[in-house]
Amino acid sequence: MSAATVTFRRAVPDDLPRIVALLADDPIGRTRENPGPQLDTRYHEAFAAIERDPNQLLAVAERGGHVIGVLQLSFIPGLSRRGMWRGQIEGVRVAAGERAGGIGRAMLQWAIEECRRRGCGLVQLTSDKRRSAAHGFYEALGFEATHQGYKLSL
Amino acid sequence: MSAATVTFRRAVPDDLPRIVALLADDPIGRTRENPGPQLDTRYHEAFAAIERDPNQLLAVAERGGHVIGVLQLSFIPGLSRRGMWRGQIEGVRVAAGERAGGIGRAMLQWAIEECRRRGCGLVQLTSDKRRSAAHGFYEALGFEATHQGYKLSL
Repeated sequence: MSAATVTFRRAVPDDLPRIVALLADDPIGRTRENPGPQLDTRYHEAFAAIERDPNQLLAVAERGGHVIGVLQLSFIPGLSRRGMWRGQIEGVRVAAGERAGGIGRAMLQWAIEECRRRGCGLVQLTSDKRRSAAHGFYEALGFEATHQGYKLSL
Repeated sequence: MSAATVTFRRAVPDDLPRIVALLADDPIGRTRENPGPQLDTRYHEAFAAIERDPNQLLAVAERGGHVIGVLQLSFIPGLSRRGMWRGQIEGVRVAAGERAGGIGRAMLQWAIEECRRRGCGLVQLTSDKRRSAAHGFYEALGFEATHQGYKLSL
């Protein structure tokens, strides 16, 4: 099946275990997530917080009833660049068996279009410097690595 | 006067022209902003959007009744890292005559504390690669440049 048969939609609560499994099925995510068997209640709380916030959109890619990808979009109002809204993409994951099949590209293109539809003038994301394969992927989509991405753990 | 006499508070509508002037008074901001004399209505709309969103906090640094710094905090719920909230800092500016006086450092420390108070497990920001002086500043505050920051203009 091709990427063309993949659909994108807002995540619903029943998707949560599958989404957490996708977040965990990754060399970096594996060290950070706890996919179960019993789902950590903090995931449920975070899902509810995302649902409550009209400027958050947790989206999944689906094919044949199976969730094969996830990302989160945040729509951020700001004064910079003449009051421009920005769309921010976090937590991009594609199921292990589906990578390199164009799913990630289709999912990002869908996300960029959502940002445009919501009136954003810019889309931004950060990618861990260890994810060197991801960098070419984002650059091929037109993203430019103009910034340093800083993190501080509290 | 020392940084100790600086106070931080949520911005109010009357601060807007001064904030936009701060955003514009910068080699990169100069090319992007329009500080007036008549303020672009998009700044008013953006300010209203920030005020409406309980997960946004536009903050100013003030000394002796004068606004000398600004930054925006976004509190972002997310599933990654076991449902961890992240605080994001954007649009950091300190008035030209006040740089290197510890104002920026005090403002960032205040912002980090706000993120902690709101339950964030991580603070993140991106900094334009052309702002090399800013990079040492963030690193001295404990931030690590672990990520590439990608932008795509729409």
